[in-house]
Amino acid sequence: MAKIDRERLLAGLRKLRSFGASGTGVVRQSFSDDDMAARRWLRDEMQAAGLSAEIDGVGNVVGRSPNPGPALIIGSHSDTQPRGGWLDGAMGVMYAIEIAKALGEDHATADLAIDTVAFVDEEGTYSSFLGSSSLVGDLSDAALGDSNADGETVAQAIERTGLAGRPTASIDPGRHIAYLEAHIEQGPHLDDAGLRIGVVTGIVGIRSVRVTFVGEQNHAGSTPMARRKDAGATLFAYAVAMRERLTTVAGPASVWNIGSARLLPGGESIIPGLADLVVQFRDPSDEVLDTMEAAIFAVAEEIHAEGPVEVTATRQREPVPPAEMDPDLRRHLASAAERRVPGGWVEMPSAAAHDAQVVSAHLPSAMLFIPSIGGVSHDFSEDSHELDIATGCQVLADAAVSILAAHRRPAP
Amino acid sequence: MAKIDRERLLAGLRKLRSFGASGTGVVRQSFSDDDMAARRWLRDEMQAAGLSAEIDGVGNVVGRSPNPGPALIIGSHSDTQPRGGWLDGAMGVMYAIEIAKALGEDHATADLAIDTVAFVDEEGTYSSFLGSSSLVGDLSDAALGDSNADGETVAQAIERTGLAGRPTASIDPGRHIAYLEAHIEQGPHLDDAGLRIGVVTGIVGIRSVRVTFVGEQNHAGSTPMARRKDAGATLFAYAVAMRERLTTVAGPASVWNIGSARLLPGGESIIPGLADLVVQFRDPSDEVLDTMEAAIFAVAEEIHAEGPVEVTATRQREPVPPAEMDPDLRRHLASAAERRVPGGWVEMPSAAAHDAQVVSAHLPSAMLFIPSIGGVSHDFSEDSHELDIATGCQVLADAAVSILAAHRRPAP
Repeated sequence: MAKIDRERLLAGLRKLRSFGASGTGVVRQSFSDDDMAARRWLRDEMQAAGLSAEIDGVGNVVGRSPNPGPALIIGSHSDTQPRGGWLDGAMGVMYAIEIAKALGEDHATADLAIDTVAFVDEEGTYSSFLGSSSLVGDLSDAALGDSNADGETVAQAIERTGLAGRPTASIDPGRHIAYLEAHIEQGPHLDDAGLRIGVVTGIVGIRSVRVTFVGEQNHAGSTPMARRKDAGATLFAYAVAMRERLTTVAGPASVWNIGSARLLPGGESIIPGLADLVVQFRDPSDEVLDTMEAAIFAVAEEIHAEGPVEVTATRQREPVPPAEMDPDLRRHLASAAERRVPGGWVEMPSAAAHDAQVVSAHLPSAMLFIPSIGGVSHDFSEDSHELDIATGCQVLADAAVSILAAHRRPAP
Repeated sequence: MAKIDRERLLAGLRKLRSFGASGTGVVRQSFSDDDMAARRWLRDEMQAAGLSAEIDGVGNVVGRSPNPGPALIIGSHSDTQPRGGWLDGAMGVMYAIEIAKALGEDHATADLAIDTVAFVDEEGTYSSFLGSSSLVGDLSDAALGDSNADGETVAQAIERTGLAGRPTASIDPGRHIAYLEAHIEQGPHLDDAGLRIGVVTGIVGIRSVRVTFVGEQNHAGSTPMARRKDAGATLFAYAVAMRERLTTVAGPASVWNIGSARLLPGGESIIPGLADLVVQFRDPSDEVLDTMEAAIFAVAEEIHAEGPVEVTATRQREPVPPAEMDPDLRRHLASAAERRVPGGWVEMPSAAAHDAQVVSAHLPSAMLFIPSIGGVSHDFSEDSHELDIATGCQVLADAAVSILAAHRRPAP
């Protein structure tokens, strides 16, 4: 079996961190100068792994093996959150490059085709899953108009960074048989249980609903309590009732969050006339998501019916459907994990979204997790143990070899 | 009895509205160009009423009758909310000028001393009760450092408007025997009951408490529900529990409001790590305010004890103590009201704060309310019926005459 080079992998990760490093973390949002510099370096690294590599017309860095197919695409995204960790996305990209190098250096695997990708803007600085949507041919014109916090659109960023007019890479159905992505877990399950590897069964779907409360703005001193139409008080009551309802109807893997709420106009002496909140909820099952959504709407209708504040619930954005990871690929990952860390791995759903979610609708996909220390992610303090980083890469390399070996075996 | 001139009063009110008029409402915040132009016009009007009048060193417009004391001070404030009504404050000022004119024109009352005032910044664009605090000698150095939303301090505004160096007016204990203020009710009680006049028994005290929730910011997908320290969810639970508690312990005249609440950092996919709200509460009794405050703190301690989110309650600003209106002055107002609108008046507390609250700590004070149509105030649509506006002024004029007559009567 091809053996990955732990020190080379870690050195590469540290080098990638240096683009936008801030303490132990990284600030490398899509299309920033640091992000583009990192992409040029990743292109060079892919070339050093023996691949022909380019930054494509949307910003994806894609490396193509000179070997004929069947080929795997391995990768993840290299952009970060505004205050990102050094492994989120980056690790999956560096795994891909290390696997391409390691397999190329081993006589037994040098003929296997590993293509690599560093997706752009998974994090949604402009438009979530921009790069993976482009690779699978799902990029809409609307997405090119999505903008960052400064109001620059994707199209403008592509123009500014000199990418305009370049070809964009696509899945090649005659060549590519699967997509593999490794990632830190971004949750505490593996770390809590002392496990080393997670084989992802599926990625949760995400939906969100905005609930709006229309009452009557008035003087908070002279308006009697019984006469108020307090949009804020109704929002509080809704949030508590909705939480109770979801606790009873949700599944064991369901999560939900009210991340933002507003009371308007916001004066201490003014009864809020308007209020709103957004509830985001996730589950691996569309059926459970339907049940949760129904509960969120039902509580809104019930509180609206009680009056006097008008309560309206509306779907907030394009739902992200749950994605099942390919069972055959999962078996390869599980076998490789059991070989390297016997009893130290587990099958688990992913509660966070990933590029594999987008790719899996077009190409069989699978994901591998390694532990996040303390379950922390999207934060400068995000980290994993070096041993876990190296083990994860070796397991993914082993699985890549066994997947390709199974596919090139001639039909009996 | 001196008779007020209804058309002159209404014409003056309409003229005052023209400074900063916006539709039916007014935008005339303290120290704005419109506010200063209005103050110059008010000074001229006071002079036209036979008073010596000046804009003083803090912005108050003060008129002094040439007659010897005992004298009344009558007035209110002429600044407005950001989107203010045309009567809030303005009406009380124009009543004072009309009463000075009407009494001066009547032979029987021409020797009575009516001093007038148009206070600055009752609304707190820079510092609440700025003008009345100055008149009674309670203005602190700290208040001069209070600033508006643009960051300009009171001291800078005084400099900019050319008031710096002018003398500031004060209560004259050898001359002034009482302060009278008329105001629209800013609530629905009079309008609902079809009453014409309210004689204010006292003004509610105001306190406010900030409650802060410190949890742990984390990924809203991959952090299991049971492991979260959700500052937002705890805020919602607190707000509902606190409302229930206050409903049981508060008095019949108590009101409270949560006018603002924040969940931070505010991302849809991020569990709020920090949240806060401000609860403001009012009651005419200090004892009831103590009970309410204790409940607000107790619920915070209980929810803190439940964990895992840390809950801290802190007093938010200088409490405004309740103020009792002078019983003798109230009798004069009640007699005048009964004479003009028999059975059409009521004694009532004021649930809104007023300059009389500040003045009453230094000089016997009383207030008269007229109905607000629909109870609306602090809004462009604020209004009262012309008949009510005229009746209120006549009642206040009658009371002013009877108060001064009682005081100049030689001791038996």
